[in-house]
Amino acid sequence: MAVQPRLIYLPLGGAGEIGMNMYAYGFGPKGRERFIIVDAGVMFPDMETTPGVDLIMPDFDWLCERRNRVEALFLTHAHEDHVGAVPFVLEELDIPVFARRFTAELTKRKIAEFDLNPSRIKEVRPTPQKIKAGPFSVEFIPVSHSVPESSSLLLEVGGNRVIHTGDLKLDCDPVLGSPFDSVHWSRLAEPGVRALICDSTNVFSLREGRPEASVGPAFADLLAKTKGAMAATTFASNLARLKQLADAAKACGRSVVLLGRAMDRMVEVGRATGVLDGFPTTISTEEARNLPRNKILLLTTGSQGEPRSATAQLARGKFRGLELVAGDTLLFSSKTIPGNERSVARVMNRYAERGVRVIDDGAEIYHVSGHANRPDLAQLYRLVRPECVVPMHGEYRHLVEHVQLAGDAGLTSFLVPNGTRLDISAMQVEDEAVHAGRLYLDGTELIGSDSGVVRKRQKLARMGLACVSIVPGRGSSSRCLTEVRLFGLPSDRNGLDEAEIAAEVAGAFGQTGVRRPATDKDLRKRIESLVKQLVRTKIGKTPEVVVIVHRT
Amino acid sequence: MAVQPRLIYLPLGGAGEIGMNMYAYGFGPKGRERFIIVDAGVMFPDMETTPGVDLIMPDFDWLCERRNRVEALFLTHAHEDHVGAVPFVLEELDIPVFARRFTAELTKRKIAEFDLNPSRIKEVRPTPQKIKAGPFSVEFIPVSHSVPESSSLLLEVGGNRVIHTGDLKLDCDPVLGSPFDSVHWSRLAEPGVRALICDSTNVFSLREGRPEASVGPAFADLLAKTKGAMAATTFASNLARLKQLADAAKACGRSVVLLGRAMDRMVEVGRATGVLDGFPTTISTEEARNLPRNKILLLTTGSQGEPRSATAQLARGKFRGLELVAGDTLLFSSKTIPGNERSVARVMNRYAERGVRVIDDGAEIYHVSGHANRPDLAQLYRLVRPECVVPMHGEYRHLVEHVQLAGDAGLTSFLVPNGTRLDISAMQVEDEAVHAGRLYLDGTELIGSDSGVVRKRQKLARMGLACVSIVPGRGSSSRCLTEVRLFGLPSDRNGLDEAEIAAEVAGAFGQTGVRRPATDKDLRKRIESLVKQLVRTKIGKTPEVVVIVHRT
Repeated sequence: MAVQPRLIYLPLGGAGEIGMNMYAYGFGPKGRERFIIVDAGVMFPDMETTPGVDLIMPDFDWLCERRNRVEALFLTHAHEDHVGAVPFVLEELDIPVFARRFTAELTKRKIAEFDLNPSRIKEVRPTPQKIKAGPFSVEFIPVSHSVPESSSLLLEVGGNRVIHTGDLKLDCDPVLGSPFDSVHWSRLAEPGVRALICDSTNVFSLREGRPEASVGPAFADLLAKTKGAMAATTFASNLARLKQLADAAKACGRSVVLLGRAMDRMVEVGRATGVLDGFPTTISTEEARNLPRNKILLLTTGSQGEPRSATAQLARGKFRGLELVAGDTLLFSSKTIPGNERSVARVMNRYAERGVRVIDDGAEIYHVSGHANRPDLAQLYRLVRPECVVPMHGEYRHLVEHVQLAGDAGLTSFLVPNGTRLDISAMQVEDEAVHAGRLYLDGTELIGSDSGVVRKRQKLARMGLACVSIVPGRGSSSRCLTEVRLFGLPSDRNGLDEAEIAAEVAGAFGQTGVRRPATDKDLRKRIESLVKQLVRTKIGKTPEVVVIVHRT
Repeated sequence: MAVQPRLIYLPLGGAGEIGMNMYAYGFGPKGRERFIIVDAGVMFPDMETTPGVDLIMPDFDWLCERRNRVEALFLTHAHEDHVGAVPFVLEELDIPVFARRFTAELTKRKIAEFDLNPSRIKEVRPTPQKIKAGPFSVEFIPVSHSVPESSSLLLEVGGNRVIHTGDLKLDCDPVLGSPFDSVHWSRLAEPGVRALICDSTNVFSLREGRPEASVGPAFADLLAKTKGAMAATTFASNLARLKQLADAAKACGRSVVLLGRAMDRMVEVGRATGVLDGFPTTISTEEARNLPRNKILLLTTGSQGEPRSATAQLARGKFRGLELVAGDTLLFSSKTIPGNERSVARVMNRYAERGVRVIDDGAEIYHVSGHANRPDLAQLYRLVRPECVVPMHGEYRHLVEHVQLAGDAGLTSFLVPNGTRLDISAMQVEDEAVHAGRLYLDGTELIGSDSGVVRKRQKLARMGLACVSIVPGRGSSSRCLTEVRLFGLPSDRNGLDEAEIAAEVAGAFGQTGVRRPATDKDLRKRIESLVKQLVRTKIGKTPEVVVIVHRT
């Protein structure tokens, strides 16, 4: 009996968190599918759950185990949560990467930093160009988002047509790129769409999304009223936003200064790839210093309060010779990503101390989202009329809500979290789950999130450490040597003292006798427990303890 | 020449952060002032800035140095950011504490846990009772907030009248306590108010505040539509909120279960002190288990995602025999405090995985704030007509904005952050600042925020630790012993290996010879630098290193 080919969808990251997007599609008889990957993104660590970690990405070991059957990687757009893991994927998998020009250019630069050959990134044109990858044919459908040249992907394989939205909004006036074209989408959907794999980010946002262009007049008004120097921060990749800010500056006679490496890079790549036509000429920081304060607009990185960004550095004082002072204004043309509230508030408070006026988007006029809101998703359903909707790009609660929304619209919908396979051909979720963990980049090492390394560091951060080293005496004549070092523990009050603890340990275990355990392992355990108890009694907390036993 | 007495205001905490409120007022000739303290609160730590810390509170050493001149502590209301540090203050200062009944009862229980005599808390009645404390006369003016019996304080001293608002809102329908009475406030202000020391929390909230009672009908609607079990979480101290939830439950035939220790305690104290009249009889968890699911409403602690709260425990499974399952509903009748977004999202996602519907206040119908919004502050100015406004209870940016708001209303206003003294008599800010640091409760120890202990732990959390112990050989015949332990470092790949590092250290420093440094200190430094370099080369990160040198 010939085994029927089937089409499967498998999210490895992004369907359970907002971040680290990575989705696999496979087609073929079971066990012999050929795969393509859509996006390879990272997520950023935080001190609470991932202290010391540099980047978080999906564990793509499942794909590595099938490396000979993986055909290609397709990138929907240039955000880090979609392209940040590309170098790590390319170190493991020998596959081509397809992306439109702007995304390709940025990704080339990224992989070059990892000594990977930039030519592995293939630049493609949007629809109607079709890219063949094994049994798949893929078209890039231009959509609006908060970065140029975002794309939905139309996958055609074995008679199935699937639309993978990527991150998108239905923007009738996106400033850069083409307005959302519902006629085009209807036509695209005409031959029938088996599954719409769909962005869930804003499923809880009840009102219709606003076009990018709607913030432009607000900038013009604000700049007209502003007297001193003005700075504005937003994601550097949001070139439509930068353009509107720069145009508003130009209109009122201000020159634009880019501050922060990402700003320089994004504007440079935007110009080089032709997506940023008509961006006003910028001036250098040196030139800016010679202009009256009310003649400059600084565009700064750091809308999320990142400590090394231009915005944060300017909050602390001079940055590249420029300074914001009392009477100047800083605009956050951005939304604070959940988890970054405290960092952003810290930066805002620093500016307040300097007398700089800070304006954020509390009034919702200086920022719009790049994702489809709830009513926009419903509109998308009406245009595409898919046989099923599969929510992605969301935390679990977003996916659940989105399944519900599609269901309410009369559509079949599937909850497919990371590690779950949906058989799109058979329209059913497979029982057996795939391991879909996380990898941490820690220094130069990739470690599993379950390795215990980070958990150990969290314990150190909460409890501090006592380090005990002992050279046991040999026989009754020999002296026992014991040293203790405390690390991250309050030791100046109530007699928590390294020498005293060392003396207690030596007293208990230094000499031969009944109390001396037989093995080093026992000895270590008993010293650990003694030291924990001593410290707990003194200061009410139980440290981590390392015990080293030297054998002479 | 007789030195004139003067009235000073000195915030030690709360005027630079939202949290750890502590304000001192002094009256008398310079250097001989008598002081009262208003509030003694804490702030909660986070893993990013204060890992392992249990509580954060203002450093009140300045007051301890003047302990013989401190008369009393007055508590405006029972929130932790106003009363959490009372035990620590009472351990240092022998002063009475004055509070209204509900606040007093909760604070008595709190200090009893620290083996302090509850009789040190003195219960007072609201205005017109006047409490004498040195030269001060103090009246408690009932106001609405998000906890019963909140008070503004009217201070009278040396012919000055000062209103310290505490946390307040202008609530015309507060459910518990009396509605805001503008006639009473006008009369209060009649003899003239020298300074209004004023809550700044909601200075960025542009719309008029809504009354507490406005959420009641929304609860009734929601409960009427809800089929399975229902749980609702809010701050346990918000008894007006609990009452509205419980009343709505009763109206539709649901019994109320309290879940979480704070819920039990708050309702108990609320009843005992008479502030919670008419609260429906609650049932035990055992009784609840025998009722149909649609006949119960659980009131649960944990609206901020606290991992040990009832809400978080129910998200993980059974809690005290009760469980929420698919078809049940959980309502967050709360706002997420900035910084808690990720914890709250984690809990919500757990519920989503269980199939429990989660409703938060995204639509702004199930929660109202307990603080005066911008237009409410303006209304308060019009009623009180103070000679000056002094913003408090805010981060720096709130204080700055509030100074501006008062200025725009034509009032004199002063920016007085923590550690700054305002001479209210002379209406001027003093040049010389007072040390206004923070204390950390770490286990049972109070440590200064600048002690370096926490910074050390942060480093451990980011970088991990290598612990090296060496017993140098004596002369060329003796063997050198070296041991290395790695802690919180990825050690399973690229040959980062304890034995190998130990061998390198032994090779470099184990034997006598030119490379052996003269002192132990030098030896430790050079081993530290060698180990850092070895680890950095292997895994790209530089650990903390502890070196122990045993001398035989």
